Amino acid sequence: MAEVKSDIEIARAASKKPVREVGEKLGIPDEHLLPFGHDKAKVSAQFIASVKGRENGKLILVTAINPTPAGEGKTTTTVGLGDGLNRIGKKTAICIREASLGPCFGMKGGAAGGGYAQVVPMEDINLHFTGDFHAITSAHNLLSALIDNHIYWGNALDIDTRRVTWRRVMDMNDRALREIVCSLGGVANGFPRQGGFDITVASEVMAILCLATDLEDLEKRLGEIIIGYRRDKSPVYARDLKADGAMAVLLKDALQPNLVQTLENNPAFVHGGPFANIAHGCNSVMATTTALKLADYVVTEAGFGADLGAEKFFDIKCRKAGLKPAAAVIVATVRALKMNGGVKKEDLGTENVEAVKKGCANLGRHIENVKQFGVPAVVAINHFHSDTAAEIEAVKAYVAAQGEEAVLCRHWAEGSAGAEELARKVVALAEGGASQFAPLYGDDMPLFEKIDTIVRRIYRGSEAIADKSVRAQLHQWEQQGYGHLPVCMAKTQYSFSTDPNLRGAPTDHVVPVREVRLSAGAGFVVAICGEIMTMPGLPKAPSAEKIFLNEAGYIEGLF
Amino acid sequence: MAEVKSDIEIARAASKKPVREVGEKLGIPDEHLLPFGHDKAKVSAQFIASVKGRENGKLILVTAINPTPAGEGKTTTTVGLGDGLNRIGKKTAICIREASLGPCFGMKGGAAGGGYAQVVPMEDINLHFTGDFHAITSAHNLLSALIDNHIYWGNALDIDTRRVTWRRVMDMNDRALREIVCSLGGVANGFPRQGGFDITVASEVMAILCLATDLEDLEKRLGEIIIGYRRDKSPVYARDLKADGAMAVLLKDALQPNLVQTLENNPAFVHGGPFANIAHGCNSVMATTTALKLADYVVTEAGFGADLGAEKFFDIKCRKAGLKPAAAVIVATVRALKMNGGVKKEDLGTENVEAVKKGCANLGRHIENVKQFGVPAVVAINHFHSDTAAEIEAVKAYVAAQGEEAVLCRHWAEGSAGAEELARKVVALAEGGASQFAPLYGDDMPLFEKIDTIVRRIYRGSEAIADKSVRAQLHQWEQQGYGHLPVCMAKTQYSFSTDPNLRGAPTDHVVPVREVRLSAGAGFVVAICGEIMTMPGLPKAPSAEKIFLNEAGYIEGLF
Repeated sequence: MAEVKSDIEIARAASKKPVREVGEKLGIPDEHLLPFGHDKAKVSAQFIASVKGRENGKLILVTAINPTPAGEGKTTTTVGLGDGLNRIGKKTAICIREASLGPCFGMKGGAAGGGYAQVVPMEDINLHFTGDFHAITSAHNLLSALIDNHIYWGNALDIDTRRVTWRRVMDMNDRALREIVCSLGGVANGFPRQGGFDITVASEVMAILCLATDLEDLEKRLGEIIIGYRRDKSPVYARDLKADGAMAVLLKDALQPNLVQTLENNPAFVHGGPFANIAHGCNSVMATTTALKLADYVVTEAGFGADLGAEKFFDIKCRKAGLKPAAAVIVATVRALKMNGGVKKEDLGTENVEAVKKGCANLGRHIENVKQFGVPAVVAINHFHSDTAAEIEAVKAYVAAQGEEAVLCRHWAEGSAGAEELARKVVALAEGGASQFAPLYGDDMPLFEKIDTIVRRIYRGSEAIADKSVRAQLHQWEQQGYGHLPVCMAKTQYSFSTDPNLRGAPTDHVVPVREVRLSAGAGFVVAICGEIMTMPGLPKAPSAEKIFLNEAGYIEGLF
Repeated sequence: MAEVKSDIEIARAASKKPVREVGEKLGIPDEHLLPFGHDKAKVSAQFIASVKGRENGKLILVTAINPTPAGEGKTTTTVGLGDGLNRIGKKTAICIREASLGPCFGMKGGAAGGGYAQVVPMEDINLHFTGDFHAITSAHNLLSALIDNHIYWGNALDIDTRRVTWRRVMDMNDRALREIVCSLGGVANGFPRQGGFDITVASEVMAILCLATDLEDLEKRLGEIIIGYRRDKSPVYARDLKADGAMAVLLKDALQPNLVQTLENNPAFVHGGPFANIAHGCNSVMATTTALKLADYVVTEAGFGADLGAEKFFDIKCRKAGLKPAAAVIVATVRALKMNGGVKKEDLGTENVEAVKKGCANLGRHIENVKQFGVPAVVAINHFHSDTAAEIEAVKAYVAAQGEEAVLCRHWAEGSAGAEELARKVVALAEGGASQFAPLYGDDMPLFEKIDTIVRRIYRGSEAIADKSVRAQLHQWEQQGYGHLPVCMAKTQYSFSTDPNLRGAPTDHVVPVREVRLSAGAGFVVAICGEIMTMPGLPKAPSAEKIFLNEAGYIEGLF
């Protein structure tokens, strides 16, 4: 076997084209591409406005089975499928999320695909990129500063300092900031109160940026953020602090989608990256809708497995942005199916057809779920060199028995050539016109019923349960006019249940809703079912210790 | 009188050239200009390395009398002089500091010159610009996270949590973060301790970036940062935490100088912006040394008045970077001299020749001081429409009596035409070869003696005084090998004394050194003489409340 190159080696050896040539492929004029170096650019808001009237291309969602430590390769498949579609003559753009800076210094790992299915420049994408996340951090923390400043100067809005729900953010894994007491040090520094920091991707500003349809919509949503409550529990909005205008100014450039390229020089939009638990986990609406105006096919992905990612993509992003996906790809690997079938990570190298068959229950559930939304689906088996023919055959047979097709893909090793069959299948599905997309529930359904619907129909639990206080809170929001919002489930990504160790396809579990939060600006109600960490920590030996610039000026240790 | 246009109106009406044409003027090839949009670019590190062997152009410092609320226009004069030199045929680049984001949301005001002597695009320069400050914030806070993470995982380095001197930073005016207790919330979040945030421009990482000569030097300095002390008071360094490599990776792009243009399309480097009190207040060494290789003349400025700004420029930046300034310009305005002569701000509109004469004592002191460094000086009277002929004549006569020349400048109203006479005078001084630059004190002088020398020879105080503990600390640092460092005075910028209300030219005052800090990475010892605020707050009606995007997509309320 030939020596396998690392992702970073492959990425560095890529022959990138100037980003304006990538833009040309989509018909974006040079003056509407705002360059960041020669290999990254933002697409101007003026150009985006100018293409509003065009027909949309076809939208393809890439989702996956429940994640396991074995890895699925959802982004890799998104990139490979995009390149595969371009290879067979379909003008295609991919849309993926930006990476968070903080986690890069904890564990090794990037977020731009892998092997020969990558987006470049990968170092930039994983570090500061075009500064979007820094802009979000600034806008978020400006609002925080305005809150404490308002209280300091007399608190005319009568904010209850115990009920300030707006925390601060930093794009860093820093557990020491999770819970703090601020405004210490005496009169000049304000009124001491409890506070804390989340990581930037958990910011509601991130979710807003990713759901906004234009600058005006962005500013309106920013104004609708609830920063806390008065003693009488009435909400205080960001617009009450007159924060929305300045926040929009800070986000003006960040709202413009970023264009880069795949290793095969095909266009890739990398824009936005909200958490997939307390937020909806999809790249920006601006990027997706722009790409749909410029390309015949747009391939995008959603965070985590299909139970969380696809459900939120359909029920939140598609609902709000009026998107109609034409087909979905569900990514699985033999290894991950084996783990879902009960195999331990250290035993994954051994052939185990029975475990594959058992693990396929997880895949089958996701196929059913995607079809519930009226979207036709194909399974992509993302090939790994240790997969055996019998194992692959077992997956194909299982999927065929569900009336669908599973396609073996080798884009990781072969680039677009390895995804050609998948691309042809996706085109057949999309052009067959079978999609009858509809969200799972209507806007008018009561909030708790929406949660319960997701629990029963997607997670296949018996019911959602919640304390009286949680139900009362939901009821109050309904009375305040928030009843029409979709719900955003924050649950472990590893299982259909709330127990991360319960792999496969569990049924009849109860899903307790511990807490609910209102993201009034983003426009959803978060239902928290289990422990959700919004500020990660660093491990004992953080990868930061091994990251450095080598003598050639290349970054070592990041990937 | 014709309607006077605002700075932002003038800036928006500017006919900017593509930044690559600006780079062409300095002979920077297109592939070595990393664009940020079409009007901003970074100059590649490779190109900078390639011009190392070239001859230097002539370096001109623009400094000023002690600042007053009347305004002096130091940046405006830097821009005007740069344009004036280009106008008379000298290939000239200017080098100024980047603006801090945080203060923009407090008080109205930009940091890119004014009138017809501005640097554009001013909105970008005052907001995220090319992301340098965000990169500094990230690198700084990564080190903070690594410190608490190290303590959390067992504290093998035995850091005394009461003696962690490395705080966190944010580019925001947020008084609530000045003093915090972090790591609250139980075992999973670490060991509670006191901490706090400074504004990003106060970060030692900022000072390091601005003094580093290349990437290697940057990484070395980052490693030398002292983050705190053990119980035995021995220092713990950033390199002990293996933080330097990852910090350098985060700063790799930020270290490359930013190129923009003046309203007259002349090259302007805008790069770095350290505080002028606890740091040295000058733009980056990288920008200045690069500009010197590419232009015949380089005009730069230093923070605050000449007592702080010029002294640090000479004793810290020039000493460390081996720069030899050819001439200095001392900016004064009739209005500011009147305030130095005892006139209140509300009375500045009335002619008062006597007050001008009295205030000239402040100017005279700065002239003497600059000459102490062996640098020939000219005074620039930055014209304001209310100045009377008699007042201007009084300044000219005073300066002539000191054996120097004062030149009236109208660059604010007229651009380069208004600075032509100043430009000719500067050329005469610089090409006369009179400069015999030497720092005020030698490296070998004991630290406290360095402070005392500045107090006596620059501030004209009788002596520096300090408690035994301060002197003992300085002595300890000398024993640890830091005795050769220059000192960085942190004192009020409004007076030669430590009393901000004592304008003019006080003598024989005592300067108490309250506290000393070691910036081992930046390479100076900070002597704090008075209250120094490293995290500003917002005013009662912050300008953020009035900042918004108008219907044309332009930013309103920022300037």
